[in-house]
Amino acid sequence: MPRKISYPLILVNLKSYREALGSRALAIARKALRVSEEYGVSIAIAPQIVDLRDVASTGVPTFAQHVDPVPPGSWTGHVTLEAVKDAGAIGVILNHSERRLRVSDVGRIVDMSRRYGLLTVVCGDMVDTAVALSLLKPTMVAIEPPELIGSGKAVSRVSPHSVAETVRRVRRVAAEVKVLCGAGITSGEDVRAALKLGASGVLLASAVAKAKDPGAKLGELARAVRDFIDRGG
Amino acid sequence: MPRKISYPLILVNLKSYREALGSRALAIARKALRVSEEYGVSIAIAPQIVDLRDVASTGVPTFAQHVDPVPPGSWTGHVTLEAVKDAGAIGVILNHSERRLRVSDVGRIVDMSRRYGLLTVVCGDMVDTAVALSLLKPTMVAIEPPELIGSGKAVSRVSPHSVAETVRRVRRVAAEVKVLCGAGITSGEDVRAALKLGASGVLLASAVAKAKDPGAKLGELARAVRDFIDRGG
Amino acid sequence: MPRKISYPLILVNLKSYREALGSRALAIARKALRVSEEYGVSIAIAPQIVDLRDVASTGVPTFAQHVDPVPPGSWTGHVTLEAVKDAGAIGVILNHSERRLRVSDVGRIVDMSRRYGLLTVVCGDMVDTAVALSLLKPTMVAIEPPELIGSGKAVSRVSPHSVAETVRRVRRVAAEVKVLCGAGITSGEDVRAALKLGASGVLLASAVAKAKDPGAKLGELARAVRDFIDRGG
Amino acid sequence: MPRKISYPLILVNLKSYREALGSRALAIARKALRVSEEYGVSIAIAPQIVDLRDVASTGVPTFAQHVDPVPPGSWTGHVTLEAVKDAGAIGVILNHSERRLRVSDVGRIVDMSRRYGLLTVVCGDMVDTAVALSLLKPTMVAIEPPELIGSGKAVSRVSPHSVAETVRRVRRVAAEVKVLCGAGITSGEDVRAALKLGASGVLLASAVAKAKDPGAKLGELARAVRDFIDRGG
Repeated sequence: MPRKISYPLILVNLKSYREALGSRALAIARKALRVSEEYGVSIAIAPQIVDLRDVASTGVPTFAQHVDPVPPGSWTGHVTLEAVKDAGAIGVILNHSERRLRVSDVGRIVDMSRRYGLLTVVCGDMVDTAVALSLLKPTMVAIEPPELIGSGKAVSRVSPHSVAETVRRVRRVAAEVKVLCGAGITSGEDVRAALKLGASGVLLASAVAKAKDPGAKLGELARAVRDFIDRGG
Repeated sequence: MPRKISYPLILVNLKSYREALGSRALAIARKALRVSEEYGVSIAIAPQIVDLRDVASTGVPTFAQHVDPVPPGSWTGHVTLEAVKDAGAIGVILNHSERRLRVSDVGRIVDMSRRYGLLTVVCGDMVDTAVALSLLKPTMVAIEPPELIGSGKAVSRVSPHSVAETVRRVRRVAAEVKVLCGAGITSGEDVRAALKLGASGVLLASAVAKAKDPGAKLGELARAVRDFIDRGG
Repeated sequence: MPRKISYPLILVNLKSYREALGSRALAIARKALRVSEEYGVSIAIAPQIVDLRDVASTGVPTFAQHVDPVPPGSWTGHVTLEAVKDAGAIGVILNHSERRLRVSDVGRIVDMSRRYGLLTVVCGDMVDTAVALSLLKPTMVAIEPPELIGSGKAVSRVSPHSVAETVRRVRRVAAEVKVLCGAGITSGEDVRAALKLGASGVLLASAVAKAKDPGAKLGELARAVRDFIDRGG
Repeated sequence: MPRKISYPLILVNLKSYREALGSRALAIARKALRVSEEYGVSIAIAPQIVDLRDVASTGVPTFAQHVDPVPPGSWTGHVTLEAVKDAGAIGVILNHSERRLRVSDVGRIVDMSRRYGLLTVVCGDMVDTAVALSLLKPTMVAIEPPELIGSGKAVSRVSPHSVAETVRRVRRVAAEVKVLCGAGITSGEDVRAALKLGASGVLLASAVAKAKDPGAKLGELARAVRDFIDRGG
């Protein structure tokens, strides 16, 4: 039963990519499961909402890419925590740079998620924001400088100081909150750099979702995590 | 193959109701199929996005409750036309009073929907707005005075003039656009009133989605449509 | 008393330009007054909200660049019709491509503006949108293809068909609504082209607001209007 | 020159109240100046944007109620830091419960404000949010439980624990950030309670803005601050 996650975590955001929609989302999910078992490394998938239920049913740990800050009820066209929980998700990504939330809504959703037993990954664009958001007590914060998203330049290598400082400051103000490294991660090398800086995992998207061979790419990333663990973290 | 719709249409919006989520959405969809066949009346379902694929796979004509005005790509947490099409929807509801869109986005999505072969139902809150939106050439406009939504008071009975005027004016400026009656519809009597005023169908939500027996309620509505057709429209 | 406008109208949007803020907004307003009197051509100014009161007090016809769809009351940080009226504005620009509104809000503000005795200029990005918005009965609609805004390429010359078709279709569905030509207008030649296509004026921004000599630029535009009128429209 | 503020601070938000617009905003500003001098207590005013320049010109310390997260430029209908600075404001209120901002925008505006030499008051609705926002290093955070806003029930008396905990936790993570007490404050008694809990001032609205005699009300509040100071804080 691989639905639980452990750290270091590889969290793959499929965004609204055509290359990772429907049957292709399922194929990536199945590869993630296989690679995860092969390397003993936790891999989770955040598919498009239309694919949430099917991806979750593969057994891969599944995250929603966003939820709206509303309860069940008269909310036409919204995505609720109730719905993503019912669909089998184990967590939600919040405040991604492509889907920003108001700060009070982040707080409200994090609180509600806890009651639903859902994990939360809150994204922040700068060190200060990421640290501030950690005080809302999500499960994880992800630091994602928007200028690096999709750039192929990993925050863990271009701006190692940001990651290290976020890790250090979050540890001080909200020690139980994990820090993910989340922009421009494309290679095992980037993953290694992130983990060395103290990150508890990576949040990435196109490198896997648009890869010619997503399974091979996931293998490369998982191997980097495995090596890091084997060398004693 | 009941995936096509015809007019008069009964369009059931399941909103974010807990009572109409997951397995309960599927149950309503299956009842809609059965009632639709029994009376020879078109019934379509707009489930929550997490349920879109499963509901569509029952064969019931399925609408998304909303889509975001973005193409496939780097759009974390958005719902694209590409995704709802892939999930099996035949159409989308746009600009519902609980999910308003900017006017330029309505135009853009209607145009894109046409290319995807998706039907569009654009909601408007007043006669003027509904008529204006008909000029963007959606398949249907739905007139929904917000003060009547969920009130149990049907626009077709409380404000028949609004419906008749919308029908008359839309016919003049955009003759091919159908008009749905959409607020407070709860009974066969309300449906009959709407059709007599020239509406091509109804858009309703809680009366079915929160009914103790959604199948019986759908039967009542479909019977009203059937009677109307049999008397020669 | 030049506070009333007449057609053809030159409406100058100062946006949030630093070059047209505070004392520089006032200087442009005074030049507009002078040029307006010299050529007998109507010129109105839409300054930043902080400058609304001072610009209006010069006597130049003054428009707000935007208002929020809320009444007076507990609305921290909003701009109400009540406030822009109190500040001396005679009208408001709505739904500019840089400040889009939801379609129902456009309808609501247009209706409220009428009660305040305020004129309304509603922007639309495509022919269909502009025609649709004319049905909400604003005083004017402005057609502004976003790709031409700030481009220096005038819609009246690059896409004359759009303007002519908007004029023709608005005349048919909402004859009393005036059409402004509003993207990329920079020269007297552009103004002339707009008026020949049937537009009742132009909406422009940087060509005046960022001009080295805004008075000279306004003179060039007003002269084009004057010539057009003198030749019998 | 009373443009500088000191602590404890009384910050009066005039919202979009008709009772505090235009000439009535000016009258309140002048009374604030007089009371401030009489009691030696700092009072600042946050008027509607159309009144910003005139209110600032009275010499009263003036705050904008909101600014948009955009630089000067092609931003029709936005309120920039450049504009409120030019109009004479010394600070801005951000993220009021009636005008929420995305968390990344709060961070960006706080940073930009520092460069403009503008003070920042960031509102938060819960203890966690207020403490989190203090990490973005605004000048002040204001804790405003939305259910108390306009209720006449002061947070400092109904929920003293919230205030005390915010003060304590902000002191720990961002010691230089001041905490204002901001919901339901209507009397000198409420002010006293807030200051005793460690707040550096109060943010209030209707109690002054809609008072029959705003000067008398301001006197009552200033007296409470004066007494608190005289008793040695």
